[in-house]
Amino acid sequence: MLLIKNIGILQTPIGKNSLCGEAQAQNLKLTNAAILVENGKISAIYEDGKLPNLSSVGECEVVDADGRLVTPGLVDCHTHLVFGGWRHNEIPLKLRGATYLDILKAGGGILDTVRHTRQMSEDELFEKSKGFVNEMLAGGVTTVESKSGYGLNLDDELKQLCVNKRLNEETAMQVVSTFLGAHAIPPEYKGKPNKYIDFLCNVVLPAVKEQNLAEFCDVFCEDAVFDVEQSKKMLLTAQKLGFKSKIHADEIEAIGGAVLAGEIKAISAEHLIATNEQGIESMAKGGVTAALLPATSFYLGKTYAPAREMIKNGIPVAIASDFNPGSCPSLNLQFAINLGYLKYRMLPEEILTATTLNAACAIDRGETIGSIEVGKQADLVIWDAPNFEMICYRFGSNQVKTVIKKGEIIQ
Amino acid sequence: MLLIKNIGILQTPIGKNSLCGEAQAQNLKLTNAAILVENGKISAIYEDGKLPNLSSVGECEVVDADGRLVTPGLVDCHTHLVFGGWRHNEIPLKLRGATYLDILKAGGGILDTVRHTRQMSEDELFEKSKGFVNEMLAGGVTTVESKSGYGLNLDDELKQLCVNKRLNEETAMQVVSTFLGAHAIPPEYKGKPNKYIDFLCNVVLPAVKEQNLAEFCDVFCEDAVFDVEQSKKMLLTAQKLGFKSKIHADEIEAIGGAVLAGEIKAISAEHLIATNEQGIESMAKGGVTAALLPATSFYLGKTYAPAREMIKNGIPVAIASDFNPGSCPSLNLQFAINLGYLKYRMLPEEILTATTLNAACAIDRGETIGSIEVGKQADLVIWDAPNFEMICYRFGSNQVKTVIKKGEIIQ
Repeated sequence: MLLIKNIGILQTPIGKNSLCGEAQAQNLKLTNAAILVENGKISAIYEDGKLPNLSSVGECEVVDADGRLVTPGLVDCHTHLVFGGWRHNEIPLKLRGATYLDILKAGGGILDTVRHTRQMSEDELFEKSKGFVNEMLAGGVTTVESKSGYGLNLDDELKQLCVNKRLNEETAMQVVSTFLGAHAIPPEYKGKPNKYIDFLCNVVLPAVKEQNLAEFCDVFCEDAVFDVEQSKKMLLTAQKLGFKSKIHADEIEAIGGAVLAGEIKAISAEHLIATNEQGIESMAKGGVTAALLPATSFYLGKTYAPAREMIKNGIPVAIASDFNPGSCPSLNLQFAINLGYLKYRMLPEEILTATTLNAACAIDRGETIGSIEVGKQADLVIWDAPNFEMICYRFGSNQVKTVIKKGEIIQ
Repeated sequence: MLLIKNIGILQTPIGKNSLCGEAQAQNLKLTNAAILVENGKISAIYEDGKLPNLSSVGECEVVDADGRLVTPGLVDCHTHLVFGGWRHNEIPLKLRGATYLDILKAGGGILDTVRHTRQMSEDELFEKSKGFVNEMLAGGVTTVESKSGYGLNLDDELKQLCVNKRLNEETAMQVVSTFLGAHAIPPEYKGKPNKYIDFLCNVVLPAVKEQNLAEFCDVFCEDAVFDVEQSKKMLLTAQKLGFKSKIHADEIEAIGGAVLAGEIKAISAEHLIATNEQGIESMAKGGVTAALLPATSFYLGKTYAPAREMIKNGIPVAIASDFNPGSCPSLNLQFAINLGYLKYRMLPEEILTATTLNAACAIDRGETIGSIEVGKQADLVIWDAPNFEMICYRFGSNQVKTVIKKGEIIQ
């Protein structure tokens, strides 16, 4: 049993479903609050200085928040955190103006990461990713989604997904696993994207299912990667096997990925920098959560996804880090929060919802995490700040004071 | 005595003067290197696996860099780190589109910080800034410049400068103190900038000199703050008293600040987002170092100073954090390094020079710090990275492994 008392402001979105429109900005704010945790779950919430009668509840660890802000643990709903190598060697190419697709077409970029990921053993990958996961925890992230997609063959995709499983079991981080075999066309299938999709659908997906190594299937629907038909085939095949759908859509060109997301009722569509009216309409109709990745726009020097337009049109917006070695070598979700304010022009309350409840819903975890409510898992952050405005405003410093996962103090 | 051995790459600019043009990109790179430190200074440098004969030099602490990158300690040559309050309450105004000058004209912005700084005691300010300085050290910064300018009256300017002095004496950080009384027009002198400049020149500057609390005098030369004539009077008066000159120039409008910097041979001109051909020509002629502040451009959503244009025209470029509660609430110099690559399009070698030797020269410390050379102070960073490209490429994580200041291991 754990009591967190003396909470200056307890701020949280409310509910089990993703919030859109004006509801995205509606956070519950309690002052002089306390939270009681039993068996890893929130069992009671107090405000205005009220406290449980501790003599009646037996032994209880007490944490004094000393007037600080407490929010739900952050949820990072889009990452590629299991990978070999880095890509700092692309700096000279990029300073000469090469784009992502230029580098990809020249056999570099993601294929460089694929080579390094294939070369590493599962243990080596696990040790490397464990370092990332622990740093994310220290930054207030208590649940993370992690995609495969740097193996691009049967064994190495399974290897990445096994690392996800071990991270979930052997660290304090809750890891939700996504199969993204359709992340790029591997050298073995160069010029044969349809054959590669067939291979993924017929060979890899069933193996992933059999070993129960992923909950979601994702696809990179983009010019020069997988077109709408290929993406649709991949995701519908996966749906039949019981995988929920995610889609990398409209990052560079609006080739129809967001429209497809709505049609097939994907849980989330991700990136969406270039999305258009039809994409927004289809996502709204299909109940798709938009997972926006502002640090990638920042790193690539691109425009930012039209977050306000989406909120206005009733799409729940989540914000994630997109940590990956190519387009976003940052695992810092607090920086993505800063960009939510600075670049998306979102309100602090909207941003909190985007990185807690809506992010939880983007990985189908709205029932158990993403808000501070009785019965939900006790995933909490005590911030070294008086309010969430401060988290949006200061940048470049880790503002986390204490992280609690399933009722355990992690740091 | 301290030996740092097994350095994968030792990378450093060379010399005691700021480097411009092609020389800014010329770093010395030694592989399998070692550094011997005696009495806080670098006494010998080895490469290719060579090491001193330790039996002949007596007792020696040994640090194994384990193949990592070692650079000079970073120098942050432009900060406003001693301040009261924060300014997260400006978020709603900014989301409605208010500019810096809008907020200033409404009596908020910097004047809000002035109110809070005046209300705090020297001890309170010292404790708050000590936290910042320790976080900067952990981020690899071993020398920092710190400006006054939130007191704007005799007592509170002296109070801020006393905090600088105490930070320099009571922490591991080397702090170089700058008097920036002419940072804004205080409420007491509203509409009377000339009278305020007279007050600073006749009353405050002599007091600062008498107590020996600052080495530099700086002025905010900008539309709606101090014009070129007022700035010139301030800086020339200070020069006569023995202060070296810095100038906040051409941040918002090119009203002549950079031109003035060259004319009066300022050590550095800072910001320079809006500078023009005449400004660049004058700075080049006057031997002025340009201190560029990319994180401020980032935070304000502005364009970035024309760094490549300056380098091409023979101006030594330094990069600093500009940490302050209004336009850049980040003390993270590594993030400014990322922006040097991403936004200024500078080479990693140019960026290292910009944050070590050129930054040291911007605070007139090129004789003693800013490079790894025999006889210079042993201010060193061991990075958790194999090369400086990695520091430019990854963002959002502190990549420092070990910080050494004057030969002492700080962390």
